[in-house]
Amino acid sequence: MKYSKIPVARSVVALCVAKNIHHVVISPGSRNAPLTLGFTHHPEIKPYSIVDERSAAFFALGIAQQLKQPVALVCSSGSALLNYYPAIAEAFYSDIPLVIISADRPIERIDIGDGQTIRQKNVFENHILYSANLHSELVLDQTTTDPKLQQKQFEAQKHNEREINLALNKAIEGKGPVHINVPFYEPLYDLVENVEVNPLQILPELKERTYTEKQLSAYADIWNKAKRKMVIVGVAQPNAVEQRFLDELAQDDSVIFFTETTSNLHHPDFITRIDTVIGPIEREANPDEFFKKLQPEILLTFGGMIVSKKIKAFLRKYQPHQHWHIDDKKAYNTFFCLNKHFETDVNSFFSNFLPLGKNKESDYGNYWKEIWQKRQQRHEEYMDEIPYSDLKAMQLVAPEVPENYMLQLGNSSIIRYAQLFKWKETLRIFCNRGTSGIDGSVSTAAGAACVSIEPTLLIVGDLSFFYDSNALWNNYLPSNFRIIVLNNQGGGIFRILPGNKNTENFDTYFETIHQLDAKPVCELYGVEYISAKNSEEIEKELQSFFNESKRPKLLEIFTPRKLNDEVLLEYFNFMKS
Amino acid sequence: MKYSKIPVARSVVALCVAKNIHHVVISPGSRNAPLTLGFTHHPEIKPYSIVDERSAAFFALGIAQQLKQPVALVCSSGSALLNYYPAIAEAFYSDIPLVIISADRPIERIDIGDGQTIRQKNVFENHILYSANLHSELVLDQTTTDPKLQQKQFEAQKHNEREINLALNKAIEGKGPVHINVPFYEPLYDLVENVEVNPLQILPELKERTYTEKQLSAYADIWNKAKRKMVIVGVAQPNAVEQRFLDELAQDDSVIFFTETTSNLHHPDFITRIDTVIGPIEREANPDEFFKKLQPEILLTFGGMIVSKKIKAFLRKYQPHQHWHIDDKKAYNTFFCLNKHFETDVNSFFSNFLPLGKNKESDYGNYWKEIWQKRQQRHEEYMDEIPYSDLKAMQLVAPEVPENYMLQLGNSSIIRYAQLFKWKETLRIFCNRGTSGIDGSVSTAAGAACVSIEPTLLIVGDLSFFYDSNALWNNYLPSNFRIIVLNNQGGGIFRILPGNKNTENFDTYFETIHQLDAKPVCELYGVEYISAKNSEEIEKELQSFFNESKRPKLLEIFTPRKLNDEVLLEYFNFMKS
Repeated sequence: MKYSKIPVARSVVALCVAKNIHHVVISPGSRNAPLTLGFTHHPEIKPYSIVDERSAAFFALGIAQQLKQPVALVCSSGSALLNYYPAIAEAFYSDIPLVIISADRPIERIDIGDGQTIRQKNVFENHILYSANLHSELVLDQTTTDPKLQQKQFEAQKHNEREINLALNKAIEGKGPVHINVPFYEPLYDLVENVEVNPLQILPELKERTYTEKQLSAYADIWNKAKRKMVIVGVAQPNAVEQRFLDELAQDDSVIFFTETTSNLHHPDFITRIDTVIGPIEREANPDEFFKKLQPEILLTFGGMIVSKKIKAFLRKYQPHQHWHIDDKKAYNTFFCLNKHFETDVNSFFSNFLPLGKNKESDYGNYWKEIWQKRQQRHEEYMDEIPYSDLKAMQLVAPEVPENYMLQLGNSSIIRYAQLFKWKETLRIFCNRGTSGIDGSVSTAAGAACVSIEPTLLIVGDLSFFYDSNALWNNYLPSNFRIIVLNNQGGGIFRILPGNKNTENFDTYFETIHQLDAKPVCELYGVEYISAKNSEEIEKELQSFFNESKRPKLLEIFTPRKLNDEVLLEYFNFMKS
Repeated sequence: MKYSKIPVARSVVALCVAKNIHHVVISPGSRNAPLTLGFTHHPEIKPYSIVDERSAAFFALGIAQQLKQPVALVCSSGSALLNYYPAIAEAFYSDIPLVIISADRPIERIDIGDGQTIRQKNVFENHILYSANLHSELVLDQTTTDPKLQQKQFEAQKHNEREINLALNKAIEGKGPVHINVPFYEPLYDLVENVEVNPLQILPELKERTYTEKQLSAYADIWNKAKRKMVIVGVAQPNAVEQRFLDELAQDDSVIFFTETTSNLHHPDFITRIDTVIGPIEREANPDEFFKKLQPEILLTFGGMIVSKKIKAFLRKYQPHQHWHIDDKKAYNTFFCLNKHFETDVNSFFSNFLPLGKNKESDYGNYWKEIWQKRQQRHEEYMDEIPYSDLKAMQLVAPEVPENYMLQLGNSSIIRYAQLFKWKETLRIFCNRGTSGIDGSVSTAAGAACVSIEPTLLIVGDLSFFYDSNALWNNYLPSNFRIIVLNNQGGGIFRILPGNKNTENFDTYFETIHQLDAKPVCELYGVEYISAKNSEEIEKELQSFFNESKRPKLLEIFTPRKLNDEVLLEYFNFMKS
């Protein structure tokens, strides 16, 4: 086996492998040659080559999202590294482990006018769990026989190994992005064989906190007294919570569940489309009356970010007496009333807490479940009567997604539309809700698709698609990868916001309307292209869209730009009555 | 005239206009609506709408590069802002004024789980001249009649105005990027008319330092004694230095000038293609002998980054006794021997220094000028005999660029190839050498083209082109914009570096070979597409390429991937003999 001649490069590679990092996304460069050579020659590494670092980072994020293990990124020095930042922020807020490994020049070459040289040290400080800034002394003349210099090199090597360990451990322990900056002297391309690589190993410390009955009893008392308890679940991995706990909680008449599309949780009694309940109340003559009925005494949350703005606005005004959040890493004060962060795994919490709980007699559960049933009927009625639009297109697409697919959703309009529909329970649903950006949805889906056993469908808006079309510039897209672009010729979401729409100013600077279609992008990257511009065409194309194919496929659905917002805004009015 | 109802938005817009910022590149968003509305309704603002923030920032950089005045960027909160970072680093190292204005949520909404909300405060700390983190108290209820609250608002408003002034002044004074982060409460879209906007005004302080005869005399003494003086000029704006100073210096037999393609300086005696002199020496049997002859006693530099790696390597080894750098902002210790930074404008320096100087008798100048003449002949001989390749294509293109064009060059191979050729003296030549990234060359050229009176030609490699193809996604490209893509199916520059080329590992992870062509990209964005794959086709296409047209045009030149590096490497051998 071949190794880089540079010791620090060998340590980085060996420690990544030792910590179960097997996927490495590499962007081309010369300064990073020692790392590229090291990783690509290692039999336990699956390397990917992606030129655009912004896309590379989201691609790696998609892999890590699926594997729930750190994925490494390797790039050259200079601005290359900065292109990782959008994905790093997403990983930071979505709790996805990413290991950024940047090559650098030695410190004496920084800010002296050398090419591709910037201030890489701590450059992601605002959104990183750990920044390991390695020494470059290490790679001074390795052939020296001067014992003093040898000792200095040895110490620097051990310092570096410790820093690499700490960074990698932090990515694992803290489930987030870390940055390892590795300065290299030339020559960069030399390889050696049969060298022993035994870097210092520090194991990650996995916190497993369990709450005792004593610790929980005060909370159980509060819980058992409350007649109105609301559980909200944000972004969560499929099967993150054992079904028996959910079933047990769902039986309690004093408990209602609001689960989001991205929660990947299922139960017949769960209110799965939050906005279809809250949205119509906002339009009632007396919303206060309904909101007070909905106001919980206890709010229990778990999972990541919550998409529904409506429920956030509701709870920030109609505050629960208690808000408890369960997560082994962090708790956000999303509703400005957080009382308690249970720093533990959700299953561990429930296994200890539920035995202390008692079902409470209450009409809270049934009242809202009934409303929810009515809303579902109204939804169907509305869908049957609306004209062709974004909403109609989503209605046609949703039931056709085959069982067991991974569904990746774009941000802005798409995720909000998706929250209004019913999806098969076997789907695994993901969306970049850490920063909720439109900048990397396609690359994330592409990366996720590459490591998924089941096929992947991405549904994405036109702006997100064109923004991140470099996502298709790689050789790894599986032939069963499917993309649906909902093309409403601009940022349709802005039409729903209070801007002064249908003025030239609005069209240009808010909605940013365009006449682009995805066909040339598909041609460029060898993706099969299909389009539809009405319900009949969508129905027809969907019949074969998910069939096996030699190449990935993209279905572009064109919708009438100026009608979409009207159909959506009317939706909530209709649901009310 | 219409204004945002939010005072801080009005102050930002008014102060930008007051400080001569007239070009504002806006990316769509809702949180930035107060700024977008303010800027787009202002009669003295030319707004641009660009969706992809990475491209938007380089586009703004291109405008600022041409105007030599700050250009503002406006984006929404969240990861949008992070996409600016590559261009910010480029502006930081290229001394280009850019004003980043990001909308933010109020501080209590950060890290609580709201969408598109990150830690924007000081996020560009490593590469920014000033970060103004504005208060959001300002926009609390403006209708209050509580005098205590009114006073608090007044103070916050004045604080913000001061911070905006300081940031904008720093961009002007320091010629670099600054960041103004503006938190906004909702509602965001309200407009008012007939409001008086009179923010606090603090004028920028323009340092104009002049060196006196007394201060310069010690340096003049050293100068007048030296028989070997070398002047190197890096990146510089056209007409940055008065010709009379250059003419005077060029007369001195003890002075040789090395000027780079990006220096935009011209004189018959200047050695304009540095590598054609240094490269062949490296290949001599006795390079040391020649390098010692070339080694200057005094090195005088001005301008920005130096492209030629060869001259850097030479001077780092064969050090001058004195290295002086003239620049009113900064001096890099590029050769590890900087003695003196003359903190002044180059013209001011020469107008005071040259009267103290005496021409020194020396054979230094003539010796190297003769070698330079020979090299130019050898260059022509070589070009006449080489097969079709990158180098051949550049030889065919260079003389055909019409007089007075702006020439924008891509990084990596392109700028290095360009440095080997003669270009018309009326061209104005630019390249992003601050970070030397491939990430924004197309967008920079697009922005520059939009404000240029003369037409713009961009010559760019295939990886740079595809990396930044979103550059064409806007409605501002002038019809006389021209792009030549030199498509050698990958990162050709890596073939010149010491990697183990023509292995699968090398092809995939270093050269990153591909089969893409630019035609679909042109189709997508409405650019006229022409291609050429041999010398005859290039010659033929160039005959009409620069003619007037209704749409921008792109000429894609395909070259033989595996031959290019051989032709280039052989170039320096041939030049030697």
